[in-house]
Amino acid sequence: MQNNNYLPTPTGLFFDDFIIGQKLVHGVPRTITEADATLYTALTGSRFALHCATTVANSAGFSAMPVDNFLLFHIAFGKTVNDVSLNAVANLGYAEIKFAQPCFAGDTISVSSEVIGLKENSNGKTGVVYVHSTATNQHNEIVLSFKRWVMVHKQAGVAATNINQLQSLQAEVVTAEQVIPSALNLAQWQDSFSDNQRKASDFNVGDSLFHRDGITINDSDHSLATRLYQNNARVHFDQHMMDDSKHGKRLVYGGHIISLCRALSYNGLGNAIWLSAIHGGSHCNPSFAGDTIYSQSTIKEISDVEGKDDLAIVRIEMLGIKNNNPDNMDYLYQQDGKRKKYHSDVVLDLDYSVLMRK
Amino acid sequence: MQNNNYLPTPTGLFFDDFIIGQKLVHGVPRTITEADATLYTALTGSRFALHCATTVANSAGFSAMPVDNFLLFHIAFGKTVNDVSLNAVANLGYAEIKFAQPCFAGDTISVSSEVIGLKENSNGKTGVVYVHSTATNQHNEIVLSFKRWVMVHKQAGVAATNINQLQSLQAEVVTAEQVIPSALNLAQWQDSFSDNQRKASDFNVGDSLFHRDGITINDSDHSLATRLYQNNARVHFDQHMMDDSKHGKRLVYGGHIISLCRALSYNGLGNAIWLSAIHGGSHCNPSFAGDTIYSQSTIKEISDVEGKDDLAIVRIEMLGIKNNNPDNMDYLYQQDGKRKKYHSDVVLDLDYSVLMRK
Amino acid sequence: MQNNNYLPTPTGLFFDDFIIGQKLVHGVPRTITEADATLYTALTGSRFALHCATTVANSAGFSAMPVDNFLLFHIAFGKTVNDVSLNAVANLGYAEIKFAQPCFAGDTISVSSEVIGLKENSNGKTGVVYVHSTATNQHNEIVLSFKRWVMVHKQAGVAATNINQLQSLQAEVVTAEQVIPSALNLAQWQDSFSDNQRKASDFNVGDSLFHRDGITINDSDHSLATRLYQNNARVHFDQHMMDDSKHGKRLVYGGHIISLCRALSYNGLGNAIWLSAIHGGSHCNPSFAGDTIYSQSTIKEISDVEGKDDLAIVRIEMLGIKNNNPDNMDYLYQQDGKRKKYHSDVVLDLDYSVLMRK
Repeated sequence: MQNNNYLPTPTGLFFDDFIIGQKLVHGVPRTITEADATLYTALTGSRFALHCATTVANSAGFSAMPVDNFLLFHIAFGKTVNDVSLNAVANLGYAEIKFAQPCFAGDTISVSSEVIGLKENSNGKTGVVYVHSTATNQHNEIVLSFKRWVMVHKQAGVAATNINQLQSLQAEVVTAEQVIPSALNLAQWQDSFSDNQRKASDFNVGDSLFHRDGITINDSDHSLATRLYQNNARVHFDQHMMDDSKHGKRLVYGGHIISLCRALSYNGLGNAIWLSAIHGGSHCNPSFAGDTIYSQSTIKEISDVEGKDDLAIVRIEMLGIKNNNPDNMDYLYQQDGKRKKYHSDVVLDLDYSVLMRK
Repeated sequence: MQNNNYLPTPTGLFFDDFIIGQKLVHGVPRTITEADATLYTALTGSRFALHCATTVANSAGFSAMPVDNFLLFHIAFGKTVNDVSLNAVANLGYAEIKFAQPCFAGDTISVSSEVIGLKENSNGKTGVVYVHSTATNQHNEIVLSFKRWVMVHKQAGVAATNINQLQSLQAEVVTAEQVIPSALNLAQWQDSFSDNQRKASDFNVGDSLFHRDGITINDSDHSLATRLYQNNARVHFDQHMMDDSKHGKRLVYGGHIISLCRALSYNGLGNAIWLSAIHGGSHCNPSFAGDTIYSQSTIKEISDVEGKDDLAIVRIEMLGIKNNNPDNMDYLYQQDGKRKKYHSDVVLDLDYSVLMRK
Repeated sequence: MQNNNYLPTPTGLFFDDFIIGQKLVHGVPRTITEADATLYTALTGSRFALHCATTVANSAGFSAMPVDNFLLFHIAFGKTVNDVSLNAVANLGYAEIKFAQPCFAGDTISVSSEVIGLKENSNGKTGVVYVHSTATNQHNEIVLSFKRWVMVHKQAGVAATNINQLQSLQAEVVTAEQVIPSALNLAQWQDSFSDNQRKASDFNVGDSLFHRDGITINDSDHSLATRLYQNNARVHFDQHMMDDSKHGKRLVYGGHIISLCRALSYNGLGNAIWLSAIHGGSHCNPSFAGDTIYSQSTIKEISDVEGKDDLAIVRIEMLGIKNNNPDNMDYLYQQDGKRKKYHSDVVLDLDYSVLMRK
């Protein structure tokens, strides 16, 4: 073996490899199957009715069960990792996550990204890359688009460029840009579909719900989920490497936390049947196998939907909390001078909107 | 956050919420997919041939692989948890589990329950609730019905009612009530389908089999299974809460133990191709991740099937055993005065009937 | 229970049960579903594009996504365990693994084996059994055949036979026997499908690639995989039994290691789109849950494909390595006198061929 000719293998892009306006066509298109949806249920315990039963989907105007937009997001996100974030120090945030139309089992998505912002850090070793990613289906229709920014390593020895080209990001996906599936019609919806829970008209802005149930993450759970999404970030899989990291453990993919929190939120928000947008979010602290995740939601806004009298768009702030006593929610975040600071038990703060029965 | 308006989230029913005759329509209808069946194989290792191959199912008269009735049971059971047993102290038992007709991938089941018995305990803090649950398919045909009883907490401070209204339960599902799938026809069955194992005519009442193989439960295994069934009982998922419980560990859903024992029983009972009824059962001791499960079966009864010469109904007592030497099966249960008492290694005693090749 | 009549349960065959020329028809035919393919992705993280997207498969001439031949192999292999290797001391090797034609979701495979070699060991307690196994589909067409040899226990007290009837095995599946799917046509293939990676024409014999990514095995991962394949070898599942074994731990099914290494090899060999043959392989050391697996490939041969100008057959030696520093690959194997000896971190040496884009 000593005389083998070692070839380098792909390493993903480094900060200095990115150029404003660069278009990245990500590898490996992916057909979403009925089995993806079933596995998503097994991985998260999600019970939102539109994704569980053909009869419910049909009664709501769909020809088949639509794919859960959270699942769609994870699969699309996973595609971008190999190019965008393989050398990431941290995923800093995302914004403007827009769902353009429903996906169904059998649809195939392809994902590409455009580099829309670059900012070198003053340490000269890293920089922040902003990308705008777009997932299209087999008919070349956009099904999802989103922006995210990650801190990425520079290659060793590359000179400073002091580049600082940022694009401003919207703080929210405005209601008019949240596509309501045209088929969606709740005239035949039965209260029992979602356990006779509260409807949009039962909530007021400022209402909060602690969702009671907790779910403990097992190593296989998050590994299976992250592999299902073909997200190949090494920090989720390679314990030998992570032995030497700060926490000594594999990191749980932040998207798995989002899905667990969303699944837990069924208990209280069971009528929040359709994810219409994610405005932004941050993974405030890391999660590891063994952590028990809880979730809490606060209603931030309730809006009408034009032409759909039985629906409201409800904007929700969802917090993910780990290993904490559910009765004790006062301390979750506090002001630290001018900065909002999360308690170390808070692992997620997600700002998203759903369609909810009125 | 301090000025949020905290709304209560659903907690499930307490003993004092139940009324005799009350009808509970459980949430979230569920389409059973081909992927559920595949995942069931991955979770249990089951090898009963009718559920493994289209060719075998076709040769036995079915248009497609029927769904394993154990899987069907778990999904239907899971639906009842949110209303019936979220505040359960213990699942005490079940009876009269009847399978009315085969299910196939694509069928959607909806589940409702009627309260048929209530008995307050003398401690004033708990009571036993008896329910009769019925699962129907998308054509509104009954596919499964069963009775179960659970000990449920009363709400704090509710006065004693001394209610004691019990309905008598059948000790068995009589043979005439065990629906034989009309399509089922073994004329083309090949001995190799089930590894040339013993047929009904090779067994006598009183024969016992120790099934040799053992299977160790991993945390992800039972969590994935229980989430797949959308069974949201907190004791299976929330380690943070269970840290303070008697055993300090998450409990494995008893139904997962049933499925493991049934899967292990293939080795010896490979011709027990179709679950026709569960007469009753009890989870004698809890199981936890790390336990290795073994199983043993005893033939209790062998009956003819009218009009199906190639089939017998065989009634079986299946014991589940954990972490024990398979060669040492004498001690499994013993008389304790008048009471049958199980050794602490016995985790399951299930009384069920199967259709077996003659 | 003391007066039960204990019947023996199947134990698999012992060395003295095998006869040259014996035909074993293995139990439980198996329909391969779309869900098997999805679960395979979740279990391994595999990203080879032909198996991920209908659009890619269609563009390559297939009517649907073909089943990954590694998955097909594991399912076929699993079928043989119950008869051939339940009493195995060790799986010694395999050879001549030939894929006769593509499988698709919905195909049902049945597996049988012929005993082609027997050699009693001088210790009188074990012997080596050689079998030739064949998997056929529902049309009775051969889809896969392979030879393997295992060391199997003799039954206690059986007299020595000194049998020594070996058949010579081919060192490779010659190119002419590697069936190229007739549909396969890469005229429409896009570079982005496989992340713009190197093609066959970019490689030379002797090139080596270390595939960077590592994957840590969790207990549930390998258990789920092995159950999915209905491989019932006790060493993979029964921790209670394995407590007393040399390593005190359940062994990971060697085939799972193969699949992990293959999945990892996407990073560098993403254009190796189709497994055309496995020439041979050995599991050099055992793997356990907790081990992190890495993989390294060396190009051994590059051949043209008659009538397919856009394809080459590339023969690869793939090494699986556990818990080792990827930068430190010199020591992997060395000469020990005349014998090639692997370092204890090497868990796999697989000699296989793929179709690769030119």
